[in-house]
Amino acid sequence: MATIKDVAKRAGVSVATVSRVINLSPQTRPNTVIAVQSAMKDLGYRPNAAARTLVNRKSLTIGVVVADVSDPFFGTLVKEVDNLAHQRGHQLLIGNGYHDAEREKQAIESLIQNQVGALIVHSKALDDETLKTYANELPAMVFINRRIKGLEARCVYLDNYHGAYLATEHLIALGHQRIAHIGSDHDIEDTQQRRQGYLDALAAHQLKEPVKNSESDQDKSWIAFAPPDEEGGEAAIKALLQRDENISAIFCYNDGMAAGAITALIDDGYRVPHDISVVGFDDSLIARYMHPKLTTVRYPISAMATHAAELAIALSMQGDTQKRSSTYQPTLISRESVMQKTVQCSLKG
Amino acid sequence: MATIKDVAKRAGVSVATVSRVINLSPQTRPNTVIAVQSAMKDLGYRPNAAARTLVNRKSLTIGVVVADVSDPFFGTLVKEVDNLAHQRGHQLLIGNGYHDAEREKQAIESLIQNQVGALIVHSKALDDETLKTYANELPAMVFINRRIKGLEARCVYLDNYHGAYLATEHLIALGHQRIAHIGSDHDIEDTQQRRQGYLDALAAHQLKEPVKNSESDQDKSWIAFAPPDEEGGEAAIKALLQRDENISAIFCYNDGMAAGAITALIDDGYRVPHDISVVGFDDSLIARYMHPKLTTVRYPISAMATHAAELAIALSMQGDTQKRSSTYQPTLISRESVMQKTVQCSLKG
Repeated sequence: MATIKDVAKRAGVSVATVSRVINLSPQTRPNTVIAVQSAMKDLGYRPNAAARTLVNRKSLTIGVVVADVSDPFFGTLVKEVDNLAHQRGHQLLIGNGYHDAEREKQAIESLIQNQVGALIVHSKALDDETLKTYANELPAMVFINRRIKGLEARCVYLDNYHGAYLATEHLIALGHQRIAHIGSDHDIEDTQQRRQGYLDALAAHQLKEPVKNSESDQDKSWIAFAPPDEEGGEAAIKALLQRDENISAIFCYNDGMAAGAITALIDDGYRVPHDISVVGFDDSLIARYMHPKLTTVRYPISAMATHAAELAIALSMQGDTQKRSSTYQPTLISRESVMQKTVQCSLKG
Repeated sequence: MATIKDVAKRAGVSVATVSRVINLSPQTRPNTVIAVQSAMKDLGYRPNAAARTLVNRKSLTIGVVVADVSDPFFGTLVKEVDNLAHQRGHQLLIGNGYHDAEREKQAIESLIQNQVGALIVHSKALDDETLKTYANELPAMVFINRRIKGLEARCVYLDNYHGAYLATEHLIALGHQRIAHIGSDHDIEDTQQRRQGYLDALAAHQLKEPVKNSESDQDKSWIAFAPPDEEGGEAAIKALLQRDENISAIFCYNDGMAAGAITALIDDGYRVPHDISVVGFDDSLIARYMHPKLTTVRYPISAMATHAAELAIALSMQGDTQKRSSTYQPTLISRESVMQKTVQCSLKG
């Protein structure tokens, strides 16, 4: 991949001159313009924001790619990045990837083509190699909620496994034994990590979901997968209760699914938490405004998004930075959707 | 403002050639490049997506400016535009304006500089004249939730007044007489229109909020303003109940404020709707997952966003279009947060 330096060398001019041509500066002489344009074409060079900002540092545009801004989790992420960008006098451009490889690629490439100087990416569908190629192209590209081997210093991520373990252990400590899990049907690492944390917490206490013995003996699993939103939570809880009506607690992939599950339970005549306890994940704004208020695992997305944006801006300015990535730890937020398993039910269960 | 045609004329080449130069096409001869670059500089011409798409129609980038993507209302708007853009093979870039004139301006200008070929704008802080200037610069700019005189054909908007009137009349029809209003503290036309709809519905039934007679006699108003989110709804309901504890119904500016109000009421020992009925506005996803499920005014934002995006794309492709703007009408969605005023209370109230 050609750099602005390669273009300068080939055109026999300085890097600053190449930058002026890219920015249509009036101070450039016509024969310089033509030499630079030819060098750019020969080398297949795509002007980027780094080149632009050599002339006008203030105009740095920051890009952010998330799965879906209409999901409150990503809305919060984007808002934090936007706030920091605005404080520093930068503009923000946002793209959606929808956990789909092709769309994540399009979103990233569109922002690179639109010359962002720094880019914060939430990518779950693209493989490490593809992301590394982009990261090489744009040194100020930072990854959030993902750990890429060899790029750890540009990754800000959460210990999803630990969060799921915490939530499940909290339910076990309150006497629950038949604990179900509502998972996301997006085949991303968060799904696997949260499921594994749930399973390992069960196993650590000698609890496990019913084993499937034959092809006909299916649908006994305590795990149901659905789209990670309110409607998905509704669908999943209905499937689970058909399999085992003695479930007394549910750990949900996120707060949206928990909201859907609670609505379906109440509509079905269950009391939450008296009949069934429910734990979410994220601690989104709505968790505090549900009835009952949702016990959930706090995902410190605001702090992580600000961290990622600071890292990306520092990388775009200095090329290198002292600010290093870190793993964030989730915490359990106890509210009103969980209670002690009653003795009678314990004897039965 | 110079157009691509002006550049072509001055450089003595065709419009397609200018477009090829802008797109760094390999088919352009060096002396053509220099002539076009000079003409662009002389005329102060800023290449835009329209010029780019003459060569590569597929690469159209669509911009959307909203107040705040972390608000589910705007998240839905953006998602619909993104879906349509993706269906048509276009990219989307998103900016936030936060109902602030300077930030709306920055968001619009950043997207224009990033060469969007079509732009859907939700602007509440900028005045008509400023928006008209941008609209002249970018013929494929469409306004959503705003009616600008002289630009009606490029506006897609909701009858906010009628929605508020409907909600208030619904409460009156159920016997409520002391009906409060929780409004947004953003000084935008939606706030004023919804407040006026509420007041006119009261007046049409000979109901009105207590009149303030002197400076000392304040805080009797049935209207409280706060930030248009859950926390704002909580703050506003507390203020209202201190002024008049006999309020039996509340019409809220949006569903987020309604969620906050209901939480504060329940925390305070009120039953919703038995003691106090609550109506929201928007019919956002969460309305169906609240307890009680929220009676609200449906804002058909998905249909309106798709309409606006189709209009903007059509304008970018054809320069003119048969697709005309329209006013959308809100409807009342009756769920579980409203009930008939009880006789006993009617006698008291």
